[in-house]
Amino acid sequence: MKAEILAVGTELLLGDIVNTNAQYISKQLAQMGIDVYYQTVVGDNAQRLEKTIFNAFDRAELIITSGGLGPTEDDLTKETGAKYFGKKLVLDQKAMDMLESFFSRINRKMTENNAKQAYVPEGALVMYNKNGTAPGIIMEENGKTLINLPGPPKELIPMFEEYVKPYLAKKQENIFHSRVLRVAKIGESEAEDMVKDIISAQTNPTIATYVKKFEVIFRITAKAKNENEANKIIEPMVQEIYKRFGNNIYAEGETTIQKVTCKKLMDKNLTVAVAESCTGGMLASAFTDIAGISKIFMEGDVTYSNDAKIRRLGVKEETLQKHGAVSSETAAEMAQGIAEAAGTDIGISTTGIAGPDGGTAEKPVGTVFIGLYFKGKVKTKEIHLVGNREKIRQRTVDTTFDWLRREIDKNE
Amino acid sequence: MKAEILAVGTELLLGDIVNTNAQYISKQLAQMGIDVYYQTVVGDNAQRLEKTIFNAFDRAELIITSGGLGPTEDDLTKETGAKYFGKKLVLDQKAMDMLESFFSRINRKMTENNAKQAYVPEGALVMYNKNGTAPGIIMEENGKTLINLPGPPKELIPMFEEYVKPYLAKKQENIFHSRVLRVAKIGESEAEDMVKDIISAQTNPTIATYVKKFEVIFRITAKAKNENEANKIIEPMVQEIYKRFGNNIYAEGETTIQKVTCKKLMDKNLTVAVAESCTGGMLASAFTDIAGISKIFMEGDVTYSNDAKIRRLGVKEETLQKHGAVSSETAAEMAQGIAEAAGTDIGISTTGIAGPDGGTAEKPVGTVFIGLYFKGKVKTKEIHLVGNREKIRQRTVDTTFDWLRREIDKNE
Repeated sequence: MKAEILAVGTELLLGDIVNTNAQYISKQLAQMGIDVYYQTVVGDNAQRLEKTIFNAFDRAELIITSGGLGPTEDDLTKETGAKYFGKKLVLDQKAMDMLESFFSRINRKMTENNAKQAYVPEGALVMYNKNGTAPGIIMEENGKTLINLPGPPKELIPMFEEYVKPYLAKKQENIFHSRVLRVAKIGESEAEDMVKDIISAQTNPTIATYVKKFEVIFRITAKAKNENEANKIIEPMVQEIYKRFGNNIYAEGETTIQKVTCKKLMDKNLTVAVAESCTGGMLASAFTDIAGISKIFMEGDVTYSNDAKIRRLGVKEETLQKHGAVSSETAAEMAQGIAEAAGTDIGISTTGIAGPDGGTAEKPVGTVFIGLYFKGKVKTKEIHLVGNREKIRQRTVDTTFDWLRREIDKNE
Repeated sequence: MKAEILAVGTELLLGDIVNTNAQYISKQLAQMGIDVYYQTVVGDNAQRLEKTIFNAFDRAELIITSGGLGPTEDDLTKETGAKYFGKKLVLDQKAMDMLESFFSRINRKMTENNAKQAYVPEGALVMYNKNGTAPGIIMEENGKTLINLPGPPKELIPMFEEYVKPYLAKKQENIFHSRVLRVAKIGESEAEDMVKDIISAQTNPTIATYVKKFEVIFRITAKAKNENEANKIIEPMVQEIYKRFGNNIYAEGETTIQKVTCKKLMDKNLTVAVAESCTGGMLASAFTDIAGISKIFMEGDVTYSNDAKIRRLGVKEETLQKHGAVSSETAAEMAQGIAEAAGTDIGISTTGIAGPDGGTAEKPVGTVFIGLYFKGKVKTKEIHLVGNREKIRQRTVDTTFDWLRREIDKNE
């Protein structure tokens, strides 16, 4: 099946918003094995919209539109689709009831314009909108299918999931199903080298590599009659990748190293305090992003000045003088100092040169020391990062969470 | 002049990337008064690409493409454009020299494929690429203009600025020029109400309102022969808006409240320390984002537990018991405590309920107290925010920077 995606809205042509709907729909269709040959954006203009829909149906069997379902006179997507199929608009009582209850809920009077949204092309499948006022529409005739979705992503995405996905899945003989493995701390080219033979031999399942922040993601996708069959096809390749990457694989599916590590800490009830220099609060903020973390996260100190390192963490003046604030020795004393002050199982420290200034020949920008105190023992790690200030700080945080994850696994 | 934007790349049709180039180019053209009627995305397919370009030139005088200028056989944008204009590709020596020096700089051998990038349509204007290997192309004949830009935004944007903008500006009788005013701490509908009369009377200049995070942005745009003329047309409306919004306007142009406030602190050499509860390190992190901040930012404490508030900041146990950790009294003691401990001019504290749990009838989720110690005096502010945990934390940080900005202006 060939598909086209059509976004309707002058605000897209003015560059006021970016067309994330086209990306979302394209990705969904790719996963279902439906080819997308064109994405088009057209303004709220009746003539151009009509031309575009008629033109697209000359090339494709499926058109998915977003936008232009609103209550104003400019909103013409539904009307134009009805015209293509030669249908008139009729009242849908359930849509009208939902509209009325929506307006009574927000304590506003429904205008005549709004009522327009409850009219749908005769014989169409109506997709009721739980997150807004515009219902979506599916029309199908003579091998042509037109799907109209509302423009706001928070309405479009749930509607796609609830109605469009199962509707299209029924048309497809095969589905595409994926498993995603997240690999920490291995560079892109190294990771690709380690699966080169798998990549060159791939047929079904296929393997795709993505690089995202500090991690490499493998998406293994199988084409099969159903999810169960697909999982059977995927399993041996997943096993092989686990064999090669071992505990560098930190999770499967949609998650982050921060979430995975915090969950481990909370599950094991390990208390934590952090002392930050170069990350300047980002590490504490990453912990406190997580709801419920107050159970185990006790305290964070952003000790930017040497004075604060001495006073707050008990770092020795001698250590700072002899080895410098950016050193393995200082990182160790910071980690131990914060854990002892806060009385926690774990103390973590960061000290480094995030740039753009402050680098030296011996310790260039990107040099970072991480300290980890874990139930009485202190370790440190020296890393060398590239990129701007923001990237160096962010990578330090990610690396810290990953190291902590590995140490928890070792210690428990 | 009517324009169309054409993005070339299968990765867009697969939904692997979002088409930010179309947004960028659309916005630029809108500012220059050039109408965009269509945006199209097409894959790396010779036939469909050719059809799309020929079709677009039936409707428009200007086509701007992005992508498909790479070294592989799939990259056909330049070749297809040359075909439309009936030109052959010829070697551009400067482009070749730049390619060679690029490859010698990265210590890699240039392949024959790469050399393809130095061939350009005869008679075309070549846009040399300082940020990548593919030069851009401008072809113009018989009232039709085709502009080919490389796909990566970090190459496309500088090339647009350097070559395309001045090229198109020459064609336009009038230019559009804007000034941007950033208003803190006023809600969208309130801000729009305050300029309703201006909005309904607008002709030239026009005024547009955008809401972004905690702020409202006014863009005042004039159509004129040149920038100087435009500024003269804009000035009276800008004056009027300053009169109405006063010091709620915190800056003009592209910046953030965080940058503006940190610059004030650095300029006046005011030292700062922060004590955070609900923002959990985000405030310290926002300060330490700024390069050079170590001159004035001394220390941050993330005191999540009551114990840490007492031990680190000298908050009285009695205060915590009587008023709770989320209270004006605790905020005041935290702010004073951190300033005294760190010996800074300014101490800032946050304590609140970021959710999703922890709210009560008296102090619902979103209740936040900010404390500000400024050279011996302590003030607090109670705010009530809506949204999820992330939004409440972020708004607290923005509000804190805005309050601090106002207090610095008052005190100095």
